[in-house]
Amino acid sequence: MVISYDGSAFRGFAPNEGVRTIGADLRSALERILRSEVELSVAGRTDAGVHARGQVVSFDAQSGAVRPDEMRRSLNSLLGPSIVVREVATAPDDFHARFSARWRRYRYRLLTSEVPDPFLSSTTWWTPEALDHHRMADAAHELVGTHDFTSFCRRPKGRPDASMVRRVTDARWTHEPGEGRVLTFEITATAFCHQMVRSIVGTLVDIGRGRRPTSTVTVALAGEDRSLAGQLAPPHGLILWEVGY
Amino acid sequence: MVISYDGSAFRGFAPNEGVRTIGADLRSALERILRSEVELSVAGRTDAGVHARGQVVSFDAQSGAVRPDEMRRSLNSLLGPSIVVREVATAPDDFHARFSARWRRYRYRLLTSEVPDPFLSSTTWWTPEALDHHRMADAAHELVGTHDFTSFCRRPKGRPDASMVRRVTDARWTHEPGEGRVLTFEITATAFCHQMVRSIVGTLVDIGRGRRPTSTVTVALAGEDRSLAGQLAPPHGLILWEVGY
Repeated sequence: MVISYDGSAFRGFAPNEGVRTIGADLRSALERILRSEVELSVAGRTDAGVHARGQVVSFDAQSGAVRPDEMRRSLNSLLGPSIVVREVATAPDDFHARFSARWRRYRYRLLTSEVPDPFLSSTTWWTPEALDHHRMADAAHELVGTHDFTSFCRRPKGRPDASMVRRVTDARWTHEPGEGRVLTFEITATAFCHQMVRSIVGTLVDIGRGRRPTSTVTVALAGEDRSLAGQLAPPHGLILWEVGY
Repeated sequence: MVISYDGSAFRGFAPNEGVRTIGADLRSALERILRSEVELSVAGRTDAGVHARGQVVSFDAQSGAVRPDEMRRSLNSLLGPSIVVREVATAPDDFHARFSARWRRYRYRLLTSEVPDPFLSSTTWWTPEALDHHRMADAAHELVGTHDFTSFCRRPKGRPDASMVRRVTDARWTHEPGEGRVLTFEITATAFCHQMVRSIVGTLVDIGRGRRPTSTVTVALAGEDRSLAGQLAPPHGLILWEVGY
């Protein structure tokens, strides 16, 4: 399945007792349609408040149980407006949304206008201060390549030895066509560690505001120490854009 | 003041006991800043769920009480993300947001894609059925001019003789640049009567779907009878776009 969601009202993707999550809503709708228990695999777990445009989810179901098109329509009528199933298709037996993915792409949007915008308040980070785009572009460029992202990652609990080495294949800032007020950061990597994009964006915005030198990225990558990175950008500007297989 | 708001969480503009309205939130923030009672005039009252980009509001205040720029900042910090004050300026003594307005412009947005979109669910009407754009454009053209809009208006209570004659200067459908899935109806008139845009859009969509003949608009304008018009389009696709003085 390819799904889109507005994460504003959810405590992230991963099902979690007592709170509303994307995964729990999706699983319960799916179980109602398939009339059996289902285990979901997801390409990129998103945190509370984070959105997705092209999230990919896989699961095992009895062959021919429900036609993919019919399943999409039934899911969308059960799920309500915040979660939309864009596509449902049968995948090869060994397909796994997370382990088969070759790359993930995220976007992070800044609203740079002097006044905020009620229609962009849940999908952009409002940053009205002057930003030096050249410095932000230069610093973004330093991220490309294979690096240890320890400084930009929240280490998973109970896994002190987990590798934080990731390969970033592209990282750039662009203005949205016809929307000069919105400055978008797009980053593509084979995989991301926890809070990596938000930590990178927070650091790049600090650099753009002149609060940190452009060299911060290079120094943080080499130093492998979280205190070397900048602030954590808020979750609502982040969207999991696309996953490649 | 020029203000924008996402009307999703509000019961319209007009202050009303016991429910949350744009006008009540705005007035209470303004009274807190000015430390005195304030009466608001508004260019176009919007119904529950209807949005605004360029709504205009006027009020009387002691000259020099608070600097306009400072008032804008204070209002925005009190109001939260759904209501944004874009501009505050001193107007001539005889200015009145409603009575001085020469024209109002509304937009109504349809999302025409096969699947819905979680990021457009609160600002567009999802109409996945095939729509004949030529028929909708022809019917829209019939609205331009001075007509009695009785068939498209909800008559205000207790005012059986109120005139429903309005002058529409422009009415057209366009695709948003870079967003082929969104079909936008823009209509400009000297003034609008209650539910006029939603009733017109509902009728035009009926025509686009082939459920009513293109002549419906002409027949309804001549017949002055509400039963001649089509369905009422839902409020969340409507936005008060701009007001001219």
